Amino acid sequence: MGKVFATLSMSLDGFVAGPDSRPGNPLGDGGTRLHEWLYGVETWRARQSIAGGRTNQDDDVVQENFARTGAYIMGRRMFAEGEVGWPDPPPFRAPVFVLTHTPRDPVAKQGGTTFTFVTEGIDSALAQARKAAEEAGDKDVQISGGADTVRQFLDARLLDELHIHLVPLVLGTGVRLLDGVSPDIGLAPTRVIDSPQVTHLTYRITPSWTGAPRPRRNSPTGNAER
Amino acid sequence: MGKVFATLSMSLDGFVAGPDSRPGNPLGDGGTRLHEWLYGVETWRARQSIAGGRTNQDDDVVQENFARTGAYIMGRRMFAEGEVGWPDPPPFRAPVFVLTHTPRDPVAKQGGTTFTFVTEGIDSALAQARKAAEEAGDKDVQISGGADTVRQFLDARLLDELHIHLVPLVLGTGVRLLDGVSPDIGLAPTRVIDSPQVTHLTYRITPSWTGAPRPRRNSPTGNAER
Repeated sequence: MGKVFATLSMSLDGFVAGPDSRPGNPLGDGGTRLHEWLYGVETWRARQSIAGGRTNQDDDVVQENFARTGAYIMGRRMFAEGEVGWPDPPPFRAPVFVLTHTPRDPVAKQGGTTFTFVTEGIDSALAQARKAAEEAGDKDVQISGGADTVRQFLDARLLDELHIHLVPLVLGTGVRLLDGVSPDIGLAPTRVIDSPQVTHLTYRITPSWTGAPRPRRNSPTGNAER
Repeated sequence: MGKVFATLSMSLDGFVAGPDSRPGNPLGDGGTRLHEWLYGVETWRARQSIAGGRTNQDDDVVQENFARTGAYIMGRRMFAEGEVGWPDPPPFRAPVFVLTHTPRDPVAKQGGTTFTFVTEGIDSALAQARKAAEEAGDKDVQISGGADTVRQFLDARLLDELHIHLVPLVLGTGVRLLDGVSPDIGLAPTRVIDSPQVTHLTYRITPSWTGAPRPRRNSPTGNAER
């Protein structure tokens, strides 16, 4: 079975959007600074039908994430922003399942992107996305965002991997990805790719944190080798 | 002239101490989880006069930081905790300058650690620490902490390098390192060392953020190559 993963750009102080995030300003003030590394790479640009761009380790990461994804899940607000902003063909080129409370007929766009509106919650969206990803050749499901949607999947322990593109920025205020996520969550770093602009961190989500207590000073043979 | 650097363990959600940080509980509830990677490595243990421990990439990082440091600066509260907790010889083996409002005679410990109490503020402490580090063979000055002291040096743009040991943990509440730090600060990633327990990130501090605005969609030849 394919994996379920999310990939977000986050500032060093933990923000995935700046302050005053709202319709028309989804990334918040200054939030585009989080994505500058992305806007310049060839693969992202090609998916927006823009020529040119860098081919570097950042581009490799973007390419890999598109290639492994057989279906996407996103929140209603992200879709509402995208519907007016994405080009046609949209960048996904795969089935997209939109979490919403408002039923709506599916929308088929050019290039393989279809938007299906799911009113039955995240479990139903995930079942449908898994099926589509499997049919695409045992591919993975990407939770596109926004932060609320990723947190829902984190909280329900339905995410296998969290990819953070750690951007060397301090935003100061805005939307924090991990606010409200339980400290019991287990995260194991599995890969790091660094570039001059951003550090790509991959964490495997484990059911719960399994750290052992610190070795006591009087017990030097304690668990120092664990 | 030597560099001025700080090195802190930080959770993925930005905390360098857990909740209820106070005298007797300086790392806050759950805060020792941030330092477990450190407690197990040979170099840290040796500096606490404890035998054994891991020799791995984490140990290399600790060893490098001790080796390059010719003098330390710390806040009054960190010293107060350490004075009752550190072994003798203390782990520093170098001059330590303590920021305080209360004059006090210097304290010399075994192994080369001396504590000098500085009541004239961070500029005076830095001048004295720089002199000591230079006399130790053109070494660097390490700002030991706590978070308030590191922030003072960050805000005054007196820090050359920020080293973050990014720990795969969510703490949820506590003391955030970067709270209140200006979004204008410039951070350039210069090195990443990863291990199964922690990701060691080094940032060079630049006078101010120099990011350019995002390229517009209609201007594909814009600044995509910068």
